Amino acid sequence: MLENKNLTNLNEYGEFGLIDLLTKDIKLKNKSSVLGVGDDAAIIDSGDRLQVVSTDLLVEGIHFDIHYTPLRHLGYKAIAVNLSDIAAMNARPEQVLVSIAISSRYTVEAIQELYAGMKLCCERYGVDLVGGDTTSSVSGMFISVTVLGYAKKEQLVKRSTAGLKDLICVSGDLGGAYMGLLLLEREKEVFLKDPSNQPELEGKDYILERQLKPEPRLDVIDVLEKQKVVPTSMIDISDGLASEVLHLCKDSHKGCRLYEEKIPIDTQTYDMAIEFAITPSVAALNGGEDYELLFTVAQADYDKIKDCMEFSIIGYTTDESEGCSLITKDDKLIELKAQGWNAFTKENK
Amino acid sequence: MLENKNLTNLNEYGEFGLIDLLTKDIKLKNKSSVLGVGDDAAIIDSGDRLQVVSTDLLVEGIHFDIHYTPLRHLGYKAIAVNLSDIAAMNARPEQVLVSIAISSRYTVEAIQELYAGMKLCCERYGVDLVGGDTTSSVSGMFISVTVLGYAKKEQLVKRSTAGLKDLICVSGDLGGAYMGLLLLEREKEVFLKDPSNQPELEGKDYILERQLKPEPRLDVIDVLEKQKVVPTSMIDISDGLASEVLHLCKDSHKGCRLYEEKIPIDTQTYDMAIEFAITPSVAALNGGEDYELLFTVAQADYDKIKDCMEFSIIGYTTDESEGCSLITKDDKLIELKAQGWNAFTKENK
Repeated sequence: MLENKNLTNLNEYGEFGLIDLLTKDIKLKNKSSVLGVGDDAAIIDSGDRLQVVSTDLLVEGIHFDIHYTPLRHLGYKAIAVNLSDIAAMNARPEQVLVSIAISSRYTVEAIQELYAGMKLCCERYGVDLVGGDTTSSVSGMFISVTVLGYAKKEQLVKRSTAGLKDLICVSGDLGGAYMGLLLLEREKEVFLKDPSNQPELEGKDYILERQLKPEPRLDVIDVLEKQKVVPTSMIDISDGLASEVLHLCKDSHKGCRLYEEKIPIDTQTYDMAIEFAITPSVAALNGGEDYELLFTVAQADYDKIKDCMEFSIIGYTTDESEGCSLITKDDKLIELKAQGWNAFTKENK
Repeated sequence: MLENKNLTNLNEYGEFGLIDLLTKDIKLKNKSSVLGVGDDAAIIDSGDRLQVVSTDLLVEGIHFDIHYTPLRHLGYKAIAVNLSDIAAMNARPEQVLVSIAISSRYTVEAIQELYAGMKLCCERYGVDLVGGDTTSSVSGMFISVTVLGYAKKEQLVKRSTAGLKDLICVSGDLGGAYMGLLLLEREKEVFLKDPSNQPELEGKDYILERQLKPEPRLDVIDVLEKQKVVPTSMIDISDGLASEVLHLCKDSHKGCRLYEEKIPIDTQTYDMAIEFAITPSVAALNGGEDYELLFTVAQADYDKIKDCMEFSIIGYTTDESEGCSLITKDDKLIELKAQGWNAFTKENK
């Protein structure tokens, strides 16, 4: 198929370029369709509240490696990352639909483990599993999750609505999931070379959990509501802070200044990055899968959020013409670039 | 994984057995979750109307063969079969979300073809494509579609609510999609043996279209509304009439009598079945993918539907104790058995 020189290799487009290409001419026609492609979730009119709908596809060999991913964790994560998309709209999830395609090398017991993890995550966050599809695949496992969430109209937050000189906040800490992944990949290599080698994972629980069992930050949504703060914009961090802040700024037509010293990094993440000879803040900026929330808050709300332990203020928005930059610890201004995870160029994985 | 004798091979469960096993302990907690797993779609409370949500996963090599499936048709069909699930609830679709995983052997142009077919089907049925996910796969193509539809509370129809001595109706005609599949498979074999052979598809447009480009029967929903008839139960025919009528009867706790001579079969389907030495009514009973609607109507509504050209009355419901039977053309009573398509036992494909 690629022999014809007029055809375009998929790798020439990133995931977002391809989505843009495929969806740019779509015009919404039904009045229940409030917002289509382009945010963490679509928005549907649902009577006295808004419904947000998001869907994600997890592919064996691309998004997860069955060698070191326990199926129960995988099920938990498949749900968690979808709930994170709903949290990113300042909404709360209530239903999921789960479709799986599995090759016959999996046993019924293995699939039950996968579902046990899914149900655990659903239970923890009060979500109902209401439907789905189960089929076989020729090879590998595919998990498609669709999640339905809800928010009052005045609570819903998009990624395109950041104001000027808003505070940029991020929940939790960053880079941990990526360090967990590098650690698991390293120990897999060691194991494959000599199966008598035991993996060295002791004392690395935090970063392993960040990779294998992320939690959607619905607690942050609760805190914001309690503090009576509606963020001016929000997105979840699945592809790395740099990539997501660029997304948010581009869609909001704003620039930004982030402070390197303000980026929250856990000590285990920090130590592991040093061990891998990676600058810890680079891991935090470009490592994916943290599923923390990145949001902007009007300066007028500063007093309401300044004592919140769940998130950090890491910068502010500027006029679009000022671009997106990082102020380094030694006070240099460098342009932010997205080097996040891209499913179409496996080298970046 | 299968070496341990205590583990269960997936093939021992059918698709429905596995879904039952995985979902039997689920209890719905949110009041917006009206109906969970077990019908053509889940039901969500959505203010003054009900929302129905369904999701389907199409897998290359299992659900479609890229050798003879034009990508534009595949895109169209992926949407159409999901809209059919919404029609089966007596509801109307308004939004879809589409996720695809594709290997890098596909070009951007190929994916655009796929989307062109999806958009065509969306356009034709007034549906908005509002979201999705695009990622790569290690091999093959996976398409996951989620559809959102709506109905007034008094219009929505489940598969579990057929009454006693209701009329059993089926839209269009049956067995055509299966005959189209057998024809395509035969011509593929001929072509693979000697690529200079041209496929013999002339005059077979109808059954090929039934297989490659099915239409959701939303026109039947319109006719029923116009006639002011709300079916007492409904399901769409994806796995063959026998399998679906057994589903509907089991969930409604009823038996049934179907008349073989009443089963609608197109002449092209009939002739092709004879050519393949298959009894035409067996093709209609067990061939999958017709995406027609199977529904029951109270006898009191007979006058309202007796002149409808869009569907045929093929039997009636009985007490559950009488079982589900077919009355053959030579007046024998034989028990109905499901021999429909099962994604986990490829022999049945």
